[in-house]
Amino acid sequence: MAHNLTEKILAVHLVEGALEPGTEIAIRIDHTLLQDATGTMALLEFEALGLETVLVDLAAQYVDHNLLQTDFRNADDHRYLQSACARYGIHFSRPGNGISHQVHLENFGRPGLTLLGADSHTPAAAGLSMLAMGAGGLDVALAMAGRPYYLPCPKVLGVKLTGKLSDWVSAKDVILEMLRRYDVKGCLGKVVEYYGPGVATLSVEDRAAIGNMGTELGATSSLFPSDEQTRAYLAAQGREEAWQPLSADEGARYDEYDEIDLATVEPLIACPSSPGKVVRVAEVAGTKVDQVIVGSSANSGYKDLLRVVRILEGRHSAPETDLHINPGSRQVLENIAEADGILPLMMAGAKIHQSGCLGCIGMGQAPGTGQVSLRTFPRNFPGRSGTKGDQVYLCSPETAVAAALTGMITDPRDLGRKMTYPFVEEPKKRVIDRSSVVYPGEELYQTEVVRGPNIKPFPEFEPLPESLRLTVAIKVGDNISTDGIMPAGNKVLPLRSNIEAISEFVFYQLDPDFHTRCQSLNQAAVVGGDNYGQGSSREHAALAPRYLGVRLKLAKSFARIHQANLCNFGVLPLTFQNPDDYHRLEEGMELTIENVRQLIEDGETEIPVHLNGERIITLLNVSQRQRLSLLAGGTLNRVRQELVE
Amino acid sequence: MAHNLTEKILAVHLVEGALEPGTEIAIRIDHTLLQDATGTMALLEFEALGLETVLVDLAAQYVDHNLLQTDFRNADDHRYLQSACARYGIHFSRPGNGISHQVHLENFGRPGLTLLGADSHTPAAAGLSMLAMGAGGLDVALAMAGRPYYLPCPKVLGVKLTGKLSDWVSAKDVILEMLRRYDVKGCLGKVVEYYGPGVATLSVEDRAAIGNMGTELGATSSLFPSDEQTRAYLAAQGREEAWQPLSADEGARYDEYDEIDLATVEPLIACPSSPGKVVRVAEVAGTKVDQVIVGSSANSGYKDLLRVVRILEGRHSAPETDLHINPGSRQVLENIAEADGILPLMMAGAKIHQSGCLGCIGMGQAPGTGQVSLRTFPRNFPGRSGTKGDQVYLCSPETAVAAALTGMITDPRDLGRKMTYPFVEEPKKRVIDRSSVVYPGEELYQTEVVRGPNIKPFPEFEPLPESLRLTVAIKVGDNISTDGIMPAGNKVLPLRSNIEAISEFVFYQLDPDFHTRCQSLNQAAVVGGDNYGQGSSREHAALAPRYLGVRLKLAKSFARIHQANLCNFGVLPLTFQNPDDYHRLEEGMELTIENVRQLIEDGETEIPVHLNGERIITLLNVSQRQRLSLLAGGTLNRVRQELVE
Repeated sequence: MAHNLTEKILAVHLVEGALEPGTEIAIRIDHTLLQDATGTMALLEFEALGLETVLVDLAAQYVDHNLLQTDFRNADDHRYLQSACARYGIHFSRPGNGISHQVHLENFGRPGLTLLGADSHTPAAAGLSMLAMGAGGLDVALAMAGRPYYLPCPKVLGVKLTGKLSDWVSAKDVILEMLRRYDVKGCLGKVVEYYGPGVATLSVEDRAAIGNMGTELGATSSLFPSDEQTRAYLAAQGREEAWQPLSADEGARYDEYDEIDLATVEPLIACPSSPGKVVRVAEVAGTKVDQVIVGSSANSGYKDLLRVVRILEGRHSAPETDLHINPGSRQVLENIAEADGILPLMMAGAKIHQSGCLGCIGMGQAPGTGQVSLRTFPRNFPGRSGTKGDQVYLCSPETAVAAALTGMITDPRDLGRKMTYPFVEEPKKRVIDRSSVVYPGEELYQTEVVRGPNIKPFPEFEPLPESLRLTVAIKVGDNISTDGIMPAGNKVLPLRSNIEAISEFVFYQLDPDFHTRCQSLNQAAVVGGDNYGQGSSREHAALAPRYLGVRLKLAKSFARIHQANLCNFGVLPLTFQNPDDYHRLEEGMELTIENVRQLIEDGETEIPVHLNGERIITLLNVSQRQRLSLLAGGTLNRVRQELVE
Repeated sequence: MAHNLTEKILAVHLVEGALEPGTEIAIRIDHTLLQDATGTMALLEFEALGLETVLVDLAAQYVDHNLLQTDFRNADDHRYLQSACARYGIHFSRPGNGISHQVHLENFGRPGLTLLGADSHTPAAAGLSMLAMGAGGLDVALAMAGRPYYLPCPKVLGVKLTGKLSDWVSAKDVILEMLRRYDVKGCLGKVVEYYGPGVATLSVEDRAAIGNMGTELGATSSLFPSDEQTRAYLAAQGREEAWQPLSADEGARYDEYDEIDLATVEPLIACPSSPGKVVRVAEVAGTKVDQVIVGSSANSGYKDLLRVVRILEGRHSAPETDLHINPGSRQVLENIAEADGILPLMMAGAKIHQSGCLGCIGMGQAPGTGQVSLRTFPRNFPGRSGTKGDQVYLCSPETAVAAALTGMITDPRDLGRKMTYPFVEEPKKRVIDRSSVVYPGEELYQTEVVRGPNIKPFPEFEPLPESLRLTVAIKVGDNISTDGIMPAGNKVLPLRSNIEAISEFVFYQLDPDFHTRCQSLNQAAVVGGDNYGQGSSREHAALAPRYLGVRLKLAKSFARIHQANLCNFGVLPLTFQNPDDYHRLEEGMELTIENVRQLIEDGETEIPVHLNGERIITLLNVSQRQRLSLLAGGTLNRVRQELVE
């Protein structure tokens, strides 16, 4: 029988279950990826398992989120990560060496492998035809311990690409076209697999940008075939031996179908404040722009940046428009330097930053009051830039640089009146620099792990009690992102390895008093709407509320990663059988779940919740394994027990 | 009669007084310099004067301190400054374009002129033989209004330079040698004028580094002759017409003499946590180094950075040593790019940052707990890096880069065993890029000034009352710096244009409750030891305590700029006639000064202060003009009255 590429990779890695969409499967993980914002906690969790070394083919740790170092904590985290990586056999990419996704492509990515990353944009590895997924840090810690990754078997959406992109239109516009069609939850539970003749016109880094931002569709992952572009990229990286051709079988079927004629894609832009609010650039042209940022995890590769260089060459950013360049990696900037691209960038008024996520995760680059910012980033959730009421648009490097030159939102095709669209060739051989990656080695296993005062051990949680008596601590609406639950940004990110301290910021933007109120309750519940917990994979959005006493989250529906994180930290993820019951709940109400342990042990999916003498039926749609985690008070407790048995 | 160069420049600019050391003189100011940390308040003060345009030959505004943009405030400040500069005819150097001192040298500096800057390192312009001084923002605002600058006529310390520096020894070691001899207050009230045959061996940027860090000696300014090096530098900048030769007259005399044989200078290093704690590098060699930063306002010029490039070429920073490069200006980095220096820097593991003060003013780059940081900066006061208990050393670029390569403090001459000291030539013609400076123009005077919500008008202060009844709000020791009074760093710097908000941080490191306690008092006094208010020129160290109700500072002695700032904001700067009286004062004591207005109007220098029925004689050593400011409740009140009259 003919299989699509997703099925083929899943089949090779399948450890438990069958490939029937919606049922739980377990797959073997080949590579793991951590960054510093999630990685300190994930490594603390890995350490809590008590193993001597990682048990996965390749584990990599990147430092790209917290680079500002406004106090001792960032540097302490970096030193903790570096020493723990040496101790346990993990590849360590030094601070400022680049963004995890870009550096993983350059150094480690291999077609056909699975990659689990504690970063929601991990599917950027689609660029090298890896089946790559974002997950909570604990899931990644378990994969580092050699355990399989459990997930609901995804549906596969086949998107046939035909034609070729026009000048001034690029890969970012393709994923924006997908977001225009599917919005931010149209691909929940699906892998988006691209195929067809248009694929060959996209470079590996183009595909990575599409895979990266595929996360904004709600997709489990995205996938591209491995072809001549893939081979050429790996050859340019000196790793041609990693290449193998991969594609769907002739005549393969998909669960759903769509098609994009690349030739018809226009310059698109996502308006404030959702990646799904996509319009044609022409519709918002003329809006004054204060800030332009090219780069970060999407559109920060060689061709994107060098094209920006060529467009800017001999020109200058508008007098009131700040232009920032956030290179994806040290290697990218080295290749731009090799192509004599640094001087023209600087002469155009660009500020070149060290490689990292920077403004994309709210670490600096915050726009001013009422200012408009155009960014090639994947996300523009409200306030994520660090400025309340921010006006952040997402667009291609071409659209971004057109705005930098004119000072207003501009259809980049308008630049075509003054210049031809610069043709940038992929280098046959890139400048390769692996010197800022510390490779694991036998002699390093003796390294002593260095823990600064802000690095606290993983908190102990008790098992689920027989019954729950909860108070609704907060009620929120639809599409609450993990940014809304557990903010990032320069104040909060440095606390990622200190649960007590970070828990003070839970729901901070919605309700600054949540933290104290929640702690005053014995057991707390959170009520949410649809798509609760969308966005980043950060497990702190489950872990920190649990630390404050939240034992139940009751929502209309959950984002996939967040639901898994809730089970991992012993928080019940219940959904309404009748969504209208959402309206019966208010902050301060008392909820009771009698014999909750027994119900979960018995495999019940209907969990009755009592309030004011009435009864609401809620649903617990989790796996048997997740039930065991909930009973144990979290996955770490469960796995620890299993390791003892 | 033969005159030294300081006297010659002072004589040409003298407006009031006579050149007798210690007496007050007034001089005409040719150029003014503002940066963003002091500049927002200085511009608010200038605006409060009600003028239509600046009345100084050249006014320049730089944005180099607050570049992190962790929230809306930095960007709001930048936009306020840019619009106010356009409105009032001020040159505006855009954010990330470089550090004020470096960019002023490149674009505007002229031998023989006076420069007044609201930045204590303004004497860096000594590199171009300007008599350049740091002052409070208000003094600079007044100079921008065309008014002369008042100061005590300095003594001149003539330092004869002979010989030539050895390989691996550079300009930073010369100023460290001065600090070894004079410590942090050995040159109070003096201009340090360098002369002699050794001068010709030092480039303009070498001289700028020496002038810059001369501030750490307590010096009023530093000065170098204008010679062939000066001409060549200006020619390389395309500004040869700005050159004129300048030197002391044959047989000129100095108030004090010293001499340095450059050939005998060794690599030196200032240990934590004072620029005056200088030892030979060899004495601390072997100390493990976690972080190295080359650049910021000192040692961030072309030759320093290119030499670092050449030393690093083909080598790599040690695995546990972070290497940062903070270029002095956009132009410097452009010239490094032109010399193909970017790629080798990056391949060596360096992180290249946008041009700015960054870690030197505690805006990022904070070292981790217990970590050792080697920096080419001018200052290492405790906690200034952003990390409590920091271990910051100050050294030359050569010593810094030696540590980056070996991972420990290393005498750079030891590198000589593996390589020859790289010879770096000054370029005859530099890459020149003035495109990020917005020049004033007639059409810009219509610009509307943009004020974000954090930009508050200058507070109104009442005149000095007839008598003062004060409570001692805090008593501190010797050498309290303006960092200790009014901290900088990433939390506090963004509040520089909001006095109410920033006043919460007064004495924050010494006593976090000072702010509330002080406000609860009616009139407050601060008691200090020797050299009170040393360090940065920040006027907020006078203004914010005044806002909290401080009307008197009583100390053993004051740093020059801080004393002037106190008068400017209506705070009495009194010193003990008998320093032992310091020990009679305690926090909480009540002090009374009867008829204080009358005493000041009468020109009395002895001001009796009553406590517990006893009497302490204190001294008021200020000019008649400063007396008028004190009576008016501050200089802005006084000058406003004068403008009306």
